[in-house]
Amino acid sequence: MENKPKITIVKIGGNIIDNEEILNGFLKDFAALKEAKILIHGGGKTATKIAEKLNLKPLFSNGRRITDKAMLDVTVMTYSGLINKQIVAKLQALKTNSIGFSGADGNAILSEKRTNSEVDFGFVGDVISVNKSLISTLLLQNITPVFSAITHDGNGQLLNTNADTIASEIAIALSETFDINLIYCFEKKGVLADSEDDDSVIETLNFEKYQSLKAEKAIHSGMLPKLENCFKSIENGVQNISIGNQNILKDSTIYTKIKL
Amino acid sequence: MENKPKITIVKIGGNIIDNEEILNGFLKDFAALKEAKILIHGGGKTATKIAEKLNLKPLFSNGRRITDKAMLDVTVMTYSGLINKQIVAKLQALKTNSIGFSGADGNAILSEKRTNSEVDFGFVGDVISVNKSLISTLLLQNITPVFSAITHDGNGQLLNTNADTIASEIAIALSETFDINLIYCFEKKGVLADSEDDDSVIETLNFEKYQSLKAEKAIHSGMLPKLENCFKSIENGVQNISIGNQNILKDSTIYTKIKL
Repeated sequence: MENKPKITIVKIGGNIIDNEEILNGFLKDFAALKEAKILIHGGGKTATKIAEKLNLKPLFSNGRRITDKAMLDVTVMTYSGLINKQIVAKLQALKTNSIGFSGADGNAILSEKRTNSEVDFGFVGDVISVNKSLISTLLLQNITPVFSAITHDGNGQLLNTNADTIASEIAIALSETFDINLIYCFEKKGVLADSEDDDSVIETLNFEKYQSLKAEKAIHSGMLPKLENCFKSIENGVQNISIGNQNILKDSTIYTKIKL
Repeated sequence: MENKPKITIVKIGGNIIDNEEILNGFLKDFAALKEAKILIHGGGKTATKIAEKLNLKPLFSNGRRITDKAMLDVTVMTYSGLINKQIVAKLQALKTNSIGFSGADGNAILSEKRTNSEVDFGFVGDVISVNKSLISTLLLQNITPVFSAITHDGNGQLLNTNADTIASEIAIALSETFDINLIYCFEKKGVLADSEDDDSVIETLNFEKYQSLKAEKAIHSGMLPKLENCFKSIENGVQNISIGNQNILKDSTIYTKIKL
């Protein structure tokens, strides 16, 4: 039995980012984790709000944002600028030494522009590789990397990238070296058996159960890509995966545990 | 005679940042430098343009921006987000491994909110300390730090900070360990004897000559704080200081050399 060092990787969603009180509470729990850790965040509703104020019309296709040049600039500003630096400053105040990253910084996450799609998603990147060596070095130096959902193509182009996927790809890349606890935080207490009932949390979800709930359409829309990322991660060596709300790092919180 | 490793620290101003062709040309020269290097940038006119589009009215007092909360958010987005990440992505494409920093990242630059002024500058920070150990470690690992002009107060507050001052403070902090070449790039070929004549570059400027040109008002406005930073740096151990335009890294370019 190997004995790999433990790390916790947490992806936080819009409900946490958009509410400063919730964000502060979550970051306090996150900073209190004793093991090495990584935080990944999207942009919540902030990018959409800023785009509206700039009179840009955000376009969506099947619930995914279409990123034209103007919208890419807004996501880079919002994710890698405003939100990332606010989180890093808050973590410093909590005595957690952190460095904010886009995928371009230190060539941390290389991606390629999505082209194999019937829809033109614009400046959207799919992850090609994660710089394991850089991230491992930071973790060993007791530095917490904070990733925004922006990557680059190695030729000078920044690309908007799904934050759930970034969390999953980082977890997979580091799973050879570390025993990983991957946590997705969003607005619900976990995966719900009945999406209308917030207390119908499925405490353990394996792939078979997931497939049957998907067939019944009990699990649908935004939950599907999130769970696809989870099962991809667990099939690729990530030991522990959980889905819950901003209280998931507290003891005795109910959440969903993903199993093979 | 000590033999310290050489590093080059370059601060680029608005004329370089605001023009993609000039920026690309400058970054090519910068990436070609063989020694370890650091880049510092402000925000050019981009922050002002974005603030205008957001219907914020930028306020100035004696040529200095007054940074209210909304304007702070715009500077963080623009400097640490859009501009910083675009520069880092371009440097990666030029095979210069770089990491973008605000002062909050890695606690790189700690500052305090300016309070000892008759004018309320808002969320403006004066540098207290530079994390020499972090920057030295990066340079030894062949990583080029790219600093935006945003710092933090250690209590979770981001602060807008003058980019010339950041360059000067980083140079002073590293001067014990490194032989420093500090370069300020702006829109002119150097310090001009006659501000109306772009070819009247003073090739060597010492403190005595500076004082007399200042008394004659041949040197005025924005050039004064820039030169104050230069003389502060050279008095505090920074070996070489130059002021010039985007071509300063090319051979046979005319520029101003600062001497004690």
